[in-house]
Amino acid sequence: MDKPIGVFDSGIGGLTVVKELIRLLPCEDLVYFGDTARVPYGVKSRDTIIKFSLENTLFLLQQNVKMIVIACNTSSSLALPVIRRHFKIPIIGVILPGAKEAVYATKNGRVGVIGTRATINSGAYEQEIKRLDNRIKVYSQSCPMFVPIVEEGWVSDEIALRVAQKYLAPLKGKDIDTLILGCTHYPLLKPKIQAIMGKGVRLIDSAQQVAQEVRQVLIQEGLVSKNKKRPTREFFVSDEVAIFANVASRFLGEKLGKVKRAQHV
Amino acid sequence: MDKPIGVFDSGIGGLTVVKELIRLLPCEDLVYFGDTARVPYGVKSRDTIIKFSLENTLFLLQQNVKMIVIACNTSSSLALPVIRRHFKIPIIGVILPGAKEAVYATKNGRVGVIGTRATINSGAYEQEIKRLDNRIKVYSQSCPMFVPIVEEGWVSDEIALRVAQKYLAPLKGKDIDTLILGCTHYPLLKPKIQAIMGKGVRLIDSAQQVAQEVRQVLIQEGLVSKNKKRPTREFFVSDEVAIFANVASRFLGEKLGKVKRAQHV
Repeated sequence: MDKPIGVFDSGIGGLTVVKELIRLLPCEDLVYFGDTARVPYGVKSRDTIIKFSLENTLFLLQQNVKMIVIACNTSSSLALPVIRRHFKIPIIGVILPGAKEAVYATKNGRVGVIGTRATINSGAYEQEIKRLDNRIKVYSQSCPMFVPIVEEGWVSDEIALRVAQKYLAPLKGKDIDTLILGCTHYPLLKPKIQAIMGKGVRLIDSAQQVAQEVRQVLIQEGLVSKNKKRPTREFFVSDEVAIFANVASRFLGEKLGKVKRAQHV
Repeated sequence: MDKPIGVFDSGIGGLTVVKELIRLLPCEDLVYFGDTARVPYGVKSRDTIIKFSLENTLFLLQQNVKMIVIACNTSSSLALPVIRRHFKIPIIGVILPGAKEAVYATKNGRVGVIGTRATINSGAYEQEIKRLDNRIKVYSQSCPMFVPIVEEGWVSDEIALRVAQKYLAPLKGKDIDTLILGCTHYPLLKPKIQAIMGKGVRLIDSAQQVAQEVRQVLIQEGLVSKNKKRPTREFFVSDEVAIFANVASRFLGEKLGKVKRAQHV
């Protein structure tokens, strides 16, 4: 029997990755877990992020997944190496696909990265970019208020513009031509970020690249689904189902199926 | 042997209550727990807030406390009745003391309440105020961005003023003379809130009232410390110790003793 692909995120943002997986791999079964009871991860410590990520991985393994996608930038930055060390199934994070895309996109070799405090402090994007091409200059900036602004639904508000101006000011002087949106919430602020950075700066949102990477690994490992039936998509969260379902469609771009409460948290 | 008073909060804000406890009851031993790994509570569901609060209560009971103070408004609003139902020791929340103070302060019988989404949706302040004096009109407003702003250290920033103007606009037309700051983070935004609401509006920060209530219960129950030695103050958190210790002194107004990692989360 075919097994599903497992995806986890600290909350809701990982649904942008699910959206791209559905588009690129429409026949694959999916199981999503959003850790809405313990969200956000981006302000927490490495140890705690690793602990939560290991628990989420175990939960997905119990759902009998064939592969795991860590759709959270913070978790990918800090926990992916540890999780890979412990578990046998293929595990994909969002950092390498985003870094690859940025290296491919930049013409002048100057790349910016924005993300949560934990992601930026980890230096994960910078390391991956340097490993791919060590001549590239990387400029990083954490933007802790972006997630609350998106969750408050203020993406079109004047306040969002002011906050973005404040965070992006240090990057404006760095002559970057490529900016990685290193958090799954940030694509919802794309118009504001683009307006501030200018049209000459390419914004990288790694969700599409992640889906490509997943397809490649499925092919390499002989794990592509032979599904003839309609694929199943299951959604689990650690906090109340209703709160998640209400906003989830904004990220997924379509109506969700049934959402269930996971009991491991 | 004397037992300590236990205090818990979703994170760091409850230290403002600890500060007042130290001032009013300097001989009492204290144990504080801040749930920094699962913070914030204010955006989460009733069930999750109750589950976390029960676990925190158990943790404090294992530290052999004689009484528990729930220093978190969200937790007090949603979990206090459940916790009181299950446990024998005296338990105090922050809602009733704040409500009492507001009822005492208002001259025109029009009171505002601001807090997290969970606190405001619970209607806890309104219920307590109405129980004390059902002629008082209560106007409530959730301010989800205030906590991130305080944690980002932007309390003096122009952005804080704009955010506060946006949230407080609906309360401005209600002719209130008293406003309850129903979240332990909000007192750090007092100057901005006062400037917007005007000098005629009294801001109620319940920390002092909570300390008074604690003293009263200790006397009633015969639990006042007979400490002759220097009192002990222990601090536990569920996330990394260093992150907490760095900002804790801003809330406590003095240097902390040793901070330890709690293992129940």
